[in-house]
Amino acid sequence: MDLWFKEIHNGSFGLLIKVRRSLYHGESQYQKLDIVETEDMGRMMLLDGLVMFTERDEFVYHEMIAHVPLTVHPNPGNVLVIGGGDGGTVREIARHPQVTRIDLVEIDELVVDKAKEFFPTVSCELDNPKVTVHYKDGIEFVKKSKDKYDVIIVDSTDPIGPAVGLFSHEFYQDCFNALQKDGILTAQTESPFFDVELIKKIYANLQQAFPLFRMYLAPVPTYPGGYWSFAFASKKYRPILDLNKERAETISRSTKFYNPQIHVSGFSLPNFVKKIFS
Amino acid sequence: MDLWFKEIHNGSFGLLIKVRRSLYHGESQYQKLDIVETEDMGRMMLLDGLVMFTERDEFVYHEMIAHVPLTVHPNPGNVLVIGGGDGGTVREIARHPQVTRIDLVEIDELVVDKAKEFFPTVSCELDNPKVTVHYKDGIEFVKKSKDKYDVIIVDSTDPIGPAVGLFSHEFYQDCFNALQKDGILTAQTESPFFDVELIKKIYANLQQAFPLFRMYLAPVPTYPGGYWSFAFASKKYRPILDLNKERAETISRSTKFYNPQIHVSGFSLPNFVKKIFS
Repeated sequence: MDLWFKEIHNGSFGLLIKVRRSLYHGESQYQKLDIVETEDMGRMMLLDGLVMFTERDEFVYHEMIAHVPLTVHPNPGNVLVIGGGDGGTVREIARHPQVTRIDLVEIDELVVDKAKEFFPTVSCELDNPKVTVHYKDGIEFVKKSKDKYDVIIVDSTDPIGPAVGLFSHEFYQDCFNALQKDGILTAQTESPFFDVELIKKIYANLQQAFPLFRMYLAPVPTYPGGYWSFAFASKKYRPILDLNKERAETISRSTKFYNPQIHVSGFSLPNFVKKIFS
Repeated sequence: MDLWFKEIHNGSFGLLIKVRRSLYHGESQYQKLDIVETEDMGRMMLLDGLVMFTERDEFVYHEMIAHVPLTVHPNPGNVLVIGGGDGGTVREIARHPQVTRIDLVEIDELVVDKAKEFFPTVSCELDNPKVTVHYKDGIEFVKKSKDKYDVIIVDSTDPIGPAVGLFSHEFYQDCFNALQKDGILTAQTESPFFDVELIKKIYANLQQAFPLFRMYLAPVPTYPGGYWSFAFASKKYRPILDLNKERAETISRSTKFYNPQIHVSGFSLPNFVKKIFS
C-alpha cells in the first residue's frame, strides 16, 4: 500500500512521511489523536493532524527542551511541565538525580493514555513515583502556583486552538510568579524560517515577564523547515555562563543529541534569526 | 492551480513545495534541468528532479560551504569550486578581498546558462573578472592541477550519477595534491539523519587523503531532513583554532546565515552524529 502522511505549513511547504498503517484514531473533547506506524520513522503521534513527534527523531526536541534548563539551574528539585503528555520531556527530566518532584500538567488524558499504550520508550517515566500527572488546564494550574518551581518547561502544541494561551504575556507572567526567585523557564517557540512574525510576538511577551531571555535552536526533521526554536527565560541564571559543565557531561552519557558543546552552540544564532530581534 | 513539487528521500520521507508554474525544462547530455516558481520559496532549481536550491534558503548552504574555509585560511588567494554552476558559492567567495582567482569547474554548461537567465541574485558574480568558468569534468580537472589552490570547495550534487566520483578516495587524494601545502577543502556530505552509511564511507575516504578532517552542520530546510553536513579537510589549519575572527566578523556584515559564532557552533556535533565516527 502506498500510504503517505502529509503536513502542510503555511499553505506552501510540507512534509511527507510514508505510513504502513494507522494504529489508533480517537477524539477527546480537546482534539483528534492519531497514531500511525511509519515506514522509517518509527511510530508517530499526531494531534489534529499535525506531527507531535516520531519515535525516530523525538529525542532532539525532548532532550533540548529539558536538559538546557536543568544543567543551568544549580539545584532543580521541583520541575513543572506544561503539556507534554506523551512523557518524552518527563523521561529526560527523570535522568537528573537533583530533581525530586515533577508535576506534569496535561489537559488531555487521552494523550497520556495512548502514549502509555503505544509509545513505551517515550512514556516510560510517567509512572515514576517522582511524577504527578494533573489532568488540568496549564494556564489555570500555573495561576495557582507561587514561588514553587525551580524549572518550568512549556512543552506545548502550536499556538492554535487550546494552546494559544500558552504563548501569551499573562501566561508567561504567571509562570514567572510560579517560579522560585532563581527559576528558569523553557518553551518551544516554533520555526525561525517560517514563523517570524509569531516569534516576534512570543519573545515580546516573554520579555515583558522575564529579565533574561535567549533563543536557542535545534534541528527536528519532522517539524516544518526542520529547524526549531526554543526560549530560555530566567530570573537569574544565564544559559551559557551558568552552565554546570560537569552535570551536562554526565547527562550526555545517556543522551542521543544533547552534550555540553551542543548546549552552548544552540544559542549561536544565524544572522537572519538575530534580525528577528533587532 | 494546486500544483506541488514532491521529493522523496530513501522512499519514506519527503518534501512538498507549492509551485506556481514551471519556468524552464531542458535536458543536457548529463541531466534534466527544471526551474519552477514556488509559492513561498522563490524560484527553485532542480536537477534530475531533486532540489538543488531555492532562492529563499540557498544562502545557508552557500555561505557555510564558502566562508568556513575562507575565514580559516590566512590568505586564500586561489580558490577552486567543483560543481556549483549556479554561482551561489562563487558569489560568497567573491565577498573575500583576499581571493584573487576563482576557477569554477562545472561539467554542465546548461546549469550556468540557466542560472544566469533565471537566478540573477545567485549567479551574479559569475562574470566577475576574477572568475574563470571551465566546462569540464571536475575529476579530470583536479587530476591535472598540482600544488595550486589555497581552497577547494566541492559543491556537488548527491553521490548518484555523474557526481559519484566526487566522493571517492581517489578524488579526495587528487584534491589534496591540487592544494598548496596549507590548503583546505570543504565539501557537502549529505544528511546526518538519513545518510549515515554513506557519510561513513565519505569520511573514511577523506581520512585516507587528509591529515585533518572535521564535520560541520547547518540547517537547510529544502534538503532531506532539513539538517545538512559538510566536511572540512585540511593539510594544516584547524577549523576553530585557526579561525580569523576579525575577517569572519567583517564577512558576517554581508551574510544572512554565517557569523563567527555560527562558524564555531557548526562544528559541535550531537551525540548521534559523533557516533557515526566512533
